[in-house]
Amino acid sequence: MSRRHDTISFLTDYGTSDEFVGVVKAVIRDIAPHAAVIDLTHDIAPFDVRAGSLALARCISYVPEGIVLAVVDPGVGTDRRAIAVEVAGGAGILIGPDNGLLAPAVAMAGGAERAVEITNPEYRLIAPGATFDGRDVFGPAAAHLCNGVALTDLGPEVDPSLLMPATIPLPRNEGDDVIAEVLWVDRFGNCQLNIGPDDLPASWSDTVRLRLPDPVQPGATVIRSARRADRFAGIGHGIGVMLDSYGMYAVALDRRSAADDLHLAAGDQVVLADGGDDDDREGPVTTPVQFGR
Amino acid sequence: MSRRHDTISFLTDYGTSDEFVGVVKAVIRDIAPHAAVIDLTHDIAPFDVRAGSLALARCISYVPEGIVLAVVDPGVGTDRRAIAVEVAGGAGILIGPDNGLLAPAVAMAGGAERAVEITNPEYRLIAPGATFDGRDVFGPAAAHLCNGVALTDLGPEVDPSLLMPATIPLPRNEGDDVIAEVLWVDRFGNCQLNIGPDDLPASWSDTVRLRLPDPVQPGATVIRSARRADRFAGIGHGIGVMLDSYGMYAVALDRRSAADDLHLAAGDQVVLADGGDDDDREGPVTTPVQFGR
Amino acid sequence: MSRRHDTISFLTDYGTSDEFVGVVKAVIRDIAPHAAVIDLTHDIAPFDVRAGSLALARCISYVPEGIVLAVVDPGVGTDRRAIAVEVAGGAGILIGPDNGLLAPAVAMAGGAERAVEITNPEYRLIAPGATFDGRDVFGPAAAHLCNGVALTDLGPEVDPSLLMPATIPLPRNEGDDVIAEVLWVDRFGNCQLNIGPDDLPASWSDTVRLRLPDPVQPGATVIRSARRADRFAGIGHGIGVMLDSYGMYAVALDRRSAADDLHLAAGDQVVLADGGDDDDREGPVTTPVQFGR
Repeated sequence: MSRRHDTISFLTDYGTSDEFVGVVKAVIRDIAPHAAVIDLTHDIAPFDVRAGSLALARCISYVPEGIVLAVVDPGVGTDRRAIAVEVAGGAGILIGPDNGLLAPAVAMAGGAERAVEITNPEYRLIAPGATFDGRDVFGPAAAHLCNGVALTDLGPEVDPSLLMPATIPLPRNEGDDVIAEVLWVDRFGNCQLNIGPDDLPASWSDTVRLRLPDPVQPGATVIRSARRADRFAGIGHGIGVMLDSYGMYAVALDRRSAADDLHLAAGDQVVLADGGDDDDREGPVTTPVQFGR
Repeated sequence: MSRRHDTISFLTDYGTSDEFVGVVKAVIRDIAPHAAVIDLTHDIAPFDVRAGSLALARCISYVPEGIVLAVVDPGVGTDRRAIAVEVAGGAGILIGPDNGLLAPAVAMAGGAERAVEITNPEYRLIAPGATFDGRDVFGPAAAHLCNGVALTDLGPEVDPSLLMPATIPLPRNEGDDVIAEVLWVDRFGNCQLNIGPDDLPASWSDTVRLRLPDPVQPGATVIRSARRADRFAGIGHGIGVMLDSYGMYAVALDRRSAADDLHLAAGDQVVLADGGDDDDREGPVTTPVQFGR
Repeated sequence: MSRRHDTISFLTDYGTSDEFVGVVKAVIRDIAPHAAVIDLTHDIAPFDVRAGSLALARCISYVPEGIVLAVVDPGVGTDRRAIAVEVAGGAGILIGPDNGLLAPAVAMAGGAERAVEITNPEYRLIAPGATFDGRDVFGPAAAHLCNGVALTDLGPEVDPSLLMPATIPLPRNEGDDVIAEVLWVDRFGNCQLNIGPDDLPASWSDTVRLRLPDPVQPGATVIRSARRADRFAGIGHGIGVMLDSYGMYAVALDRRSAADDLHLAAGDQVVLADGGDDDDREGPVTTPVQFGR
């Protein structure tokens, strides 16, 4: 027997309008009554593996030791594998489909140390029809691991380097511009970009010029001036570019939704350039429309 | 004292935008701190007893031993009874209003063995105004049962055969057709029908002809060709009729919403017929509109 | 060390579409694994401190002994204080921003006995960018209190009388009219007013005349006749004014949404007058439009 675990951190695209999440938790409770389930979120957009992988990566350094159970699984019923991946000297095991969902979180947790394909019928439920993998495969595996079942009892080991990688967009430089992308729009309308503290040149001033998709003319862009700030209250009435609470730059407004005001959505391109002496104190102003990139 | 219970599986139409669910759980925690509450779902449409009863029936074989607390209660404040129903030799007790909500789950759990009307004021909270039965009656009863209070301490026994039955639509045959109904549309747009493995003749081919409501012309129907599949990936680009993870036939698409594409909603009629040599490989095609049924 | 606590009742405007709530619960689980978290609600409208304070006040007499953690915090990142407020002889401690959010609940729990500003870096997490106070400040403080950390270890005491008060609208009388306001519209469309049992004259009949905002003509009002009822089933087909389950008067319909039918929203003014011999049995009727108040 391996070590017992006490906590299962749980993320899916199941939503909460159906009983899917509840049934998985009921199955876990039945198998491992001592295990606590922490719901990270279940409102990942249906089948949006990228959004799920990003949310999981944002959570991973905060979840307690134990099991991480994540299911965003457009390939349910295909031959994509069900996997369990051990990290951090066995302190954590991530469970889910082998479709890249787990990859960024695994990388942030130090990389996969061992991985298995979950195939052992002893630790699965029998479905009366098509498989509901959260209920029948992933949930039971998580619960049995909590009970002390060994990772390798779940199924054959697989080479971690052969697991499906994630497809996270990287920022790139083009001349003096930094070409970024909106990774995530949160409930408050803050737009997290795929750039961190080291991605903006140290020489830039506190004013940043943003080139954003034109909400009116598809394919066109608009220029907005933004202020770098280290907290919402420092943004003032204009647009802010600030390091968010996960350490990534975000386009944000103070107490208003940047996504609504600037018509930004996940996946949109945002091009940043040094604003030099631009004055952003007048609040957001729009400069001439440019076509193309 | 009866046996103590440790788990309360909880389903309502309370939603989560108000604090109703939280207050019931607070009350339970106060009375029975050792009891874990598993939220099945709280997003049953307001007052939709049928949808609640179906969701509960889908859950019932997966919930752990203990208490099932279900509240969808358009008759709160009328003289409809509050009941607790014992099943499975005392391994489970279902609590809720006597309006048919519990009936399908009770039947699936083997039938009611004993039932009581919850009337004992000792196990209720006093409301400062109108009763909030989840908080004041049902939740406290569930918690006290967890503490070992006997079923019959909650109130007088009632004859289980006199409890309100549920109104679940049964499929019927009309010539060679099977007249079915959409029971449930899930988050992914899969449309569960009220037919199981034994309801389609063994002689049918793998192609099924579906007669569906015409989304444009009220009262008219359209004919679509569907393929029987045992998993989503087997559906291909067309429409699938597959045994879902609960063992019921569902109309489904692979990675898309059948409900959206086919304009289906719970309660809609779906007529199935043998498709014989129909070719569904071209994907969905519409054949002439027919009026009436 | 102070007393250990076992329960954290948790209310925010974080929503559940992001992982914010989950991350706070993960952090709490990590610090204080023995503590149970009761989610009251997380769907307070973003930044709506008033709605959050009212929801918390509705919950407070039902939450178990222990910690109450509430975060609706438009001022995050400003110099508004993070506070912990002790009530009821130490049986409860409320944690949140000092912006009035906690004030009504504290008052209902008997008033603040001690309060501290949460400043001790030992009980905070370090954020990689802007602070996420639920995760980095409030959640850890709640968890450490559960572990037995003393209130005064969190930071310096502050005079409870200097905490930010709440701004709850009081009803007022104008001639024979009672000028009330909608505090809360629940999922079922019931409209709770800011008047309790003692706010309507004992001399009034069972019929109440309501002056409501005209949904068509801004600034105008319409008159509706309502029946006083003590439960939904007593309302009949018309409009009811009933003491709701929190002991406040609410405008309600039986099994339908009063908010939808009467176009009422939180913050709307509702003027009540004695209906005398008005007949409300015909159901809702509209009488001549009046401009202004």
